[in-house]
Amino acid sequence: MMRPNQYDAAITIFSPEGRLYQVEYALELVKRGAPVVGIFSPEGVVLAANETPESVLEDPNYFRKIFQFDEHIGVAIAGLSSDARVLLDQGRVYCQSNRLLYDEPADVESLMGVLSDRMQVYTQHGGVRPFGVSMIIAGVDTRGGKVLTTDPTGSYRGYKARAMGRNADKADKLLDERYEEGIPLGGAVKLAIEAVKTASEGEITPDIVKVAVIPKETRTFRRLSEEEVAEHIR
Amino acid sequence: MMRPNQYDAAITIFSPEGRLYQVEYALELVKRGAPVVGIFSPEGVVLAANETPESVLEDPNYFRKIFQFDEHIGVAIAGLSSDARVLLDQGRVYCQSNRLLYDEPADVESLMGVLSDRMQVYTQHGGVRPFGVSMIIAGVDTRGGKVLTTDPTGSYRGYKARAMGRNADKADKLLDERYEEGIPLGGAVKLAIEAVKTASEGEITPDIVKVAVIPKETRTFRRLSEEEVAEHIR
Amino acid sequence: MMRPNQYDAAITIFSPEGRLYQVEYALELVKRGAPVVGIFSPEGVVLAANETPESVLEDPNYFRKIFQFDEHIGVAIAGLSSDARVLLDQGRVYCQSNRLLYDEPADVESLMGVLSDRMQVYTQHGGVRPFGVSMIIAGVDTRGGKVLTTDPTGSYRGYKARAMGRNADKADKLLDERYEEGIPLGGAVKLAIEAVKTASEGEITPDIVKVAVIPKETRTFRRLSEEEVAEHIR
Amino acid sequence: MMRPNQYDAAITIFSPEGRLYQVEYALELVKRGAPVVGIFSPEGVVLAANETPESVLEDPNYFRKIFQFDEHIGVAIAGLSSDARVLLDQGRVYCQSNRLLYDEPADVESLMGVLSDRMQVYTQHGGVRPFGVSMIIAGVDTRGGKVLTTDPTGSYRGYKARAMGRNADKADKLLDERYEEGIPLGGAVKLAIEAVKTASEGEITPDIVKVAVIPKETRTFRRLSEEEVAEHIR
Amino acid sequence: MMRPNQYDAAITIFSPEGRLYQVEYALELVKRGAPVVGIFSPEGVVLAANETPESVLEDPNYFRKIFQFDEHIGVAIAGLSSDARVLLDQGRVYCQSNRLLYDEPADVESLMGVLSDRMQVYTQHGGVRPFGVSMIIAGVDTRGGKVLTTDPTGSYRGYKARAMGRNADKADKLLDERYEEGIPLGGAVKLAIEAVKTASEGEITPDIVKVAVIPKETRTFRRLSEEEVAEHIR
Amino acid sequence: MMRPNQYDAAITIFSPEGRLYQVEYALELVKRGAPVVGIFSPEGVVLAANETPESVLEDPNYFRKIFQFDEHIGVAIAGLSSDARVLLDQGRVYCQSNRLLYDEPADVESLMGVLSDRMQVYTQHGGVRPFGVSMIIAGVDTRGGKVLTTDPTGSYRGYKARAMGRNADKADKLLDERYEEGIPLGGAVKLAIEAVKTASEGEITPDIVKVAVIPKETRTFRRLSEEEVAEHIR
Amino acid sequence: MMRPNQYDAAITIFSPEGRLYQVEYALELVKRGAPVVGIFSPEGVVLAANETPESVLEDPNYFRKIFQFDEHIGVAIAGLSSDARVLLDQGRVYCQSNRLLYDEPADVESLMGVLSDRMQVYTQHGGVRPFGVSMIIAGVDTRGGKVLTTDPTGSYRGYKARAMGRNADKADKLLDERYEEGIPLGGAVKLAIEAVKTASEGEITPDIVKVAVIPKETRTFRRLSEEEVAEHIR
Repeated sequence: MMRPNQYDAAITIFSPEGRLYQVEYALELVKRGAPVVGIFSPEGVVLAANETPESVLEDPNYFRKIFQFDEHIGVAIAGLSSDARVLLDQGRVYCQSNRLLYDEPADVESLMGVLSDRMQVYTQHGGVRPFGVSMIIAGVDTRGGKVLTTDPTGSYRGYKARAMGRNADKADKLLDERYEEGIPLGGAVKLAIEAVKTASEGEITPDIVKVAVIPKETRTFRRLSEEEVAEHIR
Repeated sequence: MMRPNQYDAAITIFSPEGRLYQVEYALELVKRGAPVVGIFSPEGVVLAANETPESVLEDPNYFRKIFQFDEHIGVAIAGLSSDARVLLDQGRVYCQSNRLLYDEPADVESLMGVLSDRMQVYTQHGGVRPFGVSMIIAGVDTRGGKVLTTDPTGSYRGYKARAMGRNADKADKLLDERYEEGIPLGGAVKLAIEAVKTASEGEITPDIVKVAVIPKETRTFRRLSEEEVAEHIR
Repeated sequence: MMRPNQYDAAITIFSPEGRLYQVEYALELVKRGAPVVGIFSPEGVVLAANETPESVLEDPNYFRKIFQFDEHIGVAIAGLSSDARVLLDQGRVYCQSNRLLYDEPADVESLMGVLSDRMQVYTQHGGVRPFGVSMIIAGVDTRGGKVLTTDPTGSYRGYKARAMGRNADKADKLLDERYEEGIPLGGAVKLAIEAVKTASEGEITPDIVKVAVIPKETRTFRRLSEEEVAEHIR
Repeated sequence: MMRPNQYDAAITIFSPEGRLYQVEYALELVKRGAPVVGIFSPEGVVLAANETPESVLEDPNYFRKIFQFDEHIGVAIAGLSSDARVLLDQGRVYCQSNRLLYDEPADVESLMGVLSDRMQVYTQHGGVRPFGVSMIIAGVDTRGGKVLTTDPTGSYRGYKARAMGRNADKADKLLDERYEEGIPLGGAVKLAIEAVKTASEGEITPDIVKVAVIPKETRTFRRLSEEEVAEHIR
Repeated sequence: MMRPNQYDAAITIFSPEGRLYQVEYALELVKRGAPVVGIFSPEGVVLAANETPESVLEDPNYFRKIFQFDEHIGVAIAGLSSDARVLLDQGRVYCQSNRLLYDEPADVESLMGVLSDRMQVYTQHGGVRPFGVSMIIAGVDTRGGKVLTTDPTGSYRGYKARAMGRNADKADKLLDERYEEGIPLGGAVKLAIEAVKTASEGEITPDIVKVAVIPKETRTFRRLSEEEVAEHIR
Repeated sequence: MMRPNQYDAAITIFSPEGRLYQVEYALELVKRGAPVVGIFSPEGVVLAANETPESVLEDPNYFRKIFQFDEHIGVAIAGLSSDARVLLDQGRVYCQSNRLLYDEPADVESLMGVLSDRMQVYTQHGGVRPFGVSMIIAGVDTRGGKVLTTDPTGSYRGYKARAMGRNADKADKLLDERYEEGIPLGGAVKLAIEAVKTASEGEITPDIVKVAVIPKETRTFRRLSEEEVAEHIR
Repeated sequence: MMRPNQYDAAITIFSPEGRLYQVEYALELVKRGAPVVGIFSPEGVVLAANETPESVLEDPNYFRKIFQFDEHIGVAIAGLSSDARVLLDQGRVYCQSNRLLYDEPADVESLMGVLSDRMQVYTQHGGVRPFGVSMIIAGVDTRGGKVLTTDPTGSYRGYKARAMGRNADKADKLLDERYEEGIPLGGAVKLAIEAVKTASEGEITPDIVKVAVIPKETRTFRRLSEEEVAEHIR
């Protein structure tokens, strides 16, 4: 019945403690999202997600959590899928423009900068609400593999391994314990699936854990088949 | 007498739990709409709706729930018909432009993207309210049949079979139980009518259940006659 | 003393039940308007209204409820006359443009679409209030006679016969009971006057019931004289 | 101590009963204005007003209630004189443009349409308040004499004889009783003065009742002298 | 402790009694201003003001209440001097433009119209507050001498003699009693000083009563010297 | 615990007493600023200020209260330094433009007019707050020396000697008592320092009292050295 | 449970005491930021920061507190990193433009002016919130070394040595005690590390204290290696 005071009602103001409640509330939405994980390996990057359908009749092509920005960059999202789509569209345009203008693939960090800048604007200016989505962007560019995360504040950070969405704290704890420097790509896939499982609270089956990899060698986004995922589960 | 706190009053803000109340309230309006159903069959797609007139003197041409976007794409709507019309108009312009510019029919998913993007904007920007309508868009394009749904959030998903509007949960339960892979178009029509009936809570007659099909072969939207519907009812 | 909660104060928001109060309140204004009726006959369309003056000195030319959009289309309004005038002006411009651009009379439904679209915008965007007026548009175009109604939501529907304004429910009940398929134009006029009388709660005289017809043959709007109305009253 | 609910605070919203309070409050201001009267006679039109100065030192040229739009059209105002001036200026520009563009005097009703449209906009759009003024526009154009009235809603009507401002109801009662079809211009002047007197609650003298006539013959606005008014008073 | 209801908080709305509180509150500010007086004489016009400095070290050039618009027009202000400056600047530009465009001095009433129109806009449109100033504009143009007053509503009126600011009612009473038709310019100066004295509640000395005259003969604004004022005081 | 009513919350409205609270609150901020003083002497003008650093490590170049607009004009500020900077920048641009366009130094009063006009706008228009700064502008132009002051209302006045900021009333009292007509520049410097000392409540040392002079002869802004100040302190 | 009054809710208004609460709340956010320090030495400038990762798997490249604007200017930030990025981007563009347009490195103070002006705008205009970040900008330009600080008000000041963020008061106290005129660059590095340690409340290790220097000689920003930092820690 207790409710915070008025500082949480308007998007562009600080509370007396210097907090931006709207942004924090958006993070609550993110925390209810399906678990997603990103892992860096010297051999490439991995994205994994729990993509459980709402109904047995749902088409798996439309409740994805993992998307492709460009040949060499993927993203896993947690939060409002309609908000995410807006950012996905903008990111894809950025990647294509980059290829057209400079004849080379977009830099992972530059892409993140473009998206985060837009997200920041929505936290400081009136007449809009923050984006209700967090993202793990993983890619391999000329400078190597990168796993970057951003949230509704529009801040971004880099990680060796990171989870987002429901029970992200549990998954992060697992990643902290199990991640090893120099982990091979296969090990990263296995660890990512393990983290998704931890956050999913219960048994998971190969058909609901989705995994995508961008090997350093090919620099090409590839979704693992259900069989490949099954191999890593047990 | 209890009412949620102030987070439901302004359209572009999150509640402390990370919810967008305005969008949820728009969904309430949708839930009071007449039942509509969309079903995918390998032989085509089906849309069905309960189109009960307000008065015996009402002209059936003006309380339709099923509309045509283009030769190969139809839509069933639940919610505010004036809001739906705005989206219908935009979608039709998109389909026509596509034919003019590229000399080919619009892709079902691209059409959905255009409409959903507009719906998302109305949930994040101030000075407007979300659209008070959900849609089942069904069509057959070069990639085959598709049944996609969108709601006031601007998210969209794909289904083999899906109901919206009043008692959608009951109709969805029926669809889950009865839908079979490889269902022929005729079976899909029968199932759609059955689902509409379930959601309509009571006897329904051939004159108030409206059905449209887009067979894979013809890729052409066709409304079933009252006689055809009658055949499927019993 | 009870008053609904805050959802009725801002025009562009939904209440928890998914209602748009501002639009509903505008409908209250409409319900207090003078009774108007529209009837379709295979031989043409009829509009009737109670045009009681406020004072014996009032000029009948300025408290009309029935107006002409174009040679072949008329309209009866219930609600705020200043709001109606804005829509009348826009509709007339549309009709004239149609004649100039395409050298043919405007389609009744297209005209209704133009007006309803504007009305819808005023229910979804901030900084304005909905139009406080409902209209019965009746006309005869190349596709035959049409009687369409619209209200502050910007939705429109078609009817064989329909009343709006004060006691519209009583008038509609009468229309439901008495309307017959194939009704001749004269019978439609008589029925329209009867419906206006029912809604007017009391004796009415030929000088306060106004009637206009658009016969299918002439496709030309014509106001009945007081004598003609008198004939139909008894 | 009782005060209406919040529906009266924002200009562009309806109350639950479908009322626009801001417009109604503006009418309250009008009701406190000095009494004005307009009368139609087959021989011309008459405007009369109580123009009592605030102080004996006040210059009668600056507290007028009767103004001229054009050679053939006059107006009497009740309400906020600064608001009225805005409309007067716009109306005069319209009349002049009409003469320049079409080489003919403006139509009385067209002028009223222009002014009322502006007044309507101020009742439906945000960021402004309604005009706090009502007007009786009287003129003689090619179609004859006209006495039209408008109020803060932006509606307008026509009358044989009509009063506005303080005690308008009493003056209207008198007009209803005394007005006769075919009243000569002189009789109309006398009746107008009588009506102003009735609304003024007390003795009035020739120096505070102002009268202007536009005879059908000359179609020229003319203010009566104090002597002429005195003749009609007794 | 009692405070009026919410109608006084927003600038562009009417109270239930049809009042514009913001404008009335601005008038309160005006009523606290130093007393100013304007008087018409057949021989010219007079402006007088109490210009008491805040401190003995204050430069009299910067707390003036009487200003010059043009060679032949002056003004005395009561209220917020920063608001007045905005209007003064606009008025001076108008006067200069008039001389440049038409090669003749501005008409006093036209100048007043320009300033009052701006003041009216600030009472009807949102996002601004009314001007917190009243003005007595006095001048001699081709049509003779004029003393016009305007207030925060943007209305203006003409007077033979009028006071504004603190105790304006007392000064007006004096003017009503003492003003005589055909008063010579010298008598008008004496009366103006007397009125300022009455409103100033206490002894006044020649150094704090400022007087300016625009004789009909010269049509040229002239400030009286302290000696000239002293002569008229006793 | 008592707090004024709502009139202090919105920037552009009057309270029932005709006060602009936001402007008055901005003045409160000014009253907490470090003391500054400006004095006029027939031989030039003087500005003095208490420039106590927050920390011994602070760079004196960045907590100045006295700034230069142009060679011949300086300013001392009390209030928000970031707000003052905005006005300083605008003033400097004005001075430079004046030199470029007219090949002569800016007039002190014209500069003040430009700055005060901007300050006034921020008190009458929505979407902004008033400037939280008061200024003493002192300069010597072709018309001689000038000491002008402005505050958040955008009003400006002229003084022989004036203090602003903390304890300005005490300093003004001292100035009133000690200021003498014809005071030499050296005496003005001494008096300015004395006034700053009075307002500073306590001992002050030559390193925290800053003084700038613009002698009439050179018309050139010059900051006194710590030694020069020391001489005047005792 | 006590909460300040309404003055803290809107960004652009003053409280009765003349305070801007939104700006003060933004400062609260800054005070929770990681400690950063800037020190001036005649031999160059030093920036130091506590860059503790959130997780052992975090990539140190993405939680930096020290950034480079240009070859010769660095910055340490405390507060919201997404807000800081906006200012960093703008500053970098300014530096590059300066090189392109004038073929010379940007002036440290000019850069600070550009950034602070933007920050000020966000405290005075509606529809935005202040920037939630404070910065220490350190650089060496043609006029020597500079250490400048700015905060959410948009004010800036200069210091010999200054801390910001968590426990800045403790660190400032240490700096006040230990800073010596003529401190060599090495000593400044040591002191900066010591200050960061003081503010960090606990043991710190060479891997979490980051240091950057811009020696006067090279005028080139250089990050110290972990080994170099280790040397200075013990």
